[in-house]
Amino acid sequence: MEYAMPDAYEATDRTVPTRAKERARYDREQVHSILDAAYVCHLGFVRDGAPVVLPTLFARVDDHLYVHGSTGSRPLRMAGEADPGLDVCLTVTHVDGLVLARSAFHHSINYRSVVVHGTAHQVTDATEKRTALDALVDHVVPGRSANSRPANAKELAATAVLRLDLSEVSAKLRSGGPNDDPEDLSLPYWTGVIPVTSHRGTPIPAADLDESIELPGYLAAQH
Amino acid sequence: MEYAMPDAYEATDRTVPTRAKERARYDREQVHSILDAAYVCHLGFVRDGAPVVLPTLFARVDDHLYVHGSTGSRPLRMAGEADPGLDVCLTVTHVDGLVLARSAFHHSINYRSVVVHGTAHQVTDATEKRTALDALVDHVVPGRSANSRPANAKELAATAVLRLDLSEVSAKLRSGGPNDDPEDLSLPYWTGVIPVTSHRGTPIPAADLDESIELPGYLAAQH
Repeated sequence: MEYAMPDAYEATDRTVPTRAKERARYDREQVHSILDAAYVCHLGFVRDGAPVVLPTLFARVDDHLYVHGSTGSRPLRMAGEADPGLDVCLTVTHVDGLVLARSAFHHSINYRSVVVHGTAHQVTDATEKRTALDALVDHVVPGRSANSRPANAKELAATAVLRLDLSEVSAKLRSGGPNDDPEDLSLPYWTGVIPVTSHRGTPIPAADLDESIELPGYLAAQH
Repeated sequence: MEYAMPDAYEATDRTVPTRAKERARYDREQVHSILDAAYVCHLGFVRDGAPVVLPTLFARVDDHLYVHGSTGSRPLRMAGEADPGLDVCLTVTHVDGLVLARSAFHHSINYRSVVVHGTAHQVTDATEKRTALDALVDHVVPGRSANSRPANAKELAATAVLRLDLSEVSAKLRSGGPNDDPEDLSLPYWTGVIPVTSHRGTPIPAADLDESIELPGYLAAQH
């Protein structure tokens, strides 16, 4: 019998926000959907007692997140050196709108974010590493990994992959219009939401691209 | 005689990347321009020895960055409790393009990022706090703070502002096309860049907005 994954992640002390608790979500589907709509995350770790936050690509495969980098890069090296792994916080944020209230105080942002706490470990299994690297390419442009030269032995050796399991994780989101105080409703200020979207433009071929190579379907469909 | 600010921030052990050093920048103008083009940052701090990364609004005023939050929120509380302030890392990232190389290995992202290390302190001066709060609103929508009700005494008391000085800071960026290895140039894969931009859409008035209030000029000009 297949093990049935629970529908929601368990809330912990770290994943229950101190403020705006009603915006927190733990259901698996929503967490995955916010993660999968992004490809850049902000990865936090501690170095010499101080926080470091770096932007990096990530991909999700089931309940695992993967990030990669040169074997010489700081967090990757640290995850390899530290025996029990590297404590990280991986955060993904989408901005959906600017919320302009009548009062400065009630100005806000419509957003969807996911915060993952856990310990990242270097991936040592060759098959898992290849799967993760393919996922990292396909997470940015679905279909791309099959349409590029896979990593060779030298490139694989130069690339480290970290895995972070989705366990202590929560989403937080805000949507909708401004929430002005009743006594402010008659103030003479425009109020509403300015939608914010991310847009992929027309692909720009490399200067040295052979003219006989046409734009593949998985790219033509995106814009 | 006025003190002339140096044109560049001093590089430190923490702001010299271990990889891709040629992408690092320290000049003040470039750092400010990347910061000012964003309004959401990822703020990292250490809690119980583990990293925490949260998205939050920020604004720059000269060589100071400001973030704000409820006096009850975690980092704001921590900055107030910890006598010498709260060690933070504040990171801002813009994605400008997806770089599709012929090899999976050389896939990349065109981006501009800024990483700020330092100690954040609660702002206690009332004038500085007001200036910071106005800047936080105007950083998202220039001109907006003058066109909304300013915070009253109760709201000011409920809001904490943290200041982080720009001192240990660096920018990192990548632009341009793919850098394929010479032996890959004849591979039959499409290669180039997909531009990525952030877009502000048509403002959506709140349902309870008085119809006589027209869209102000500073909003009409943005989309």
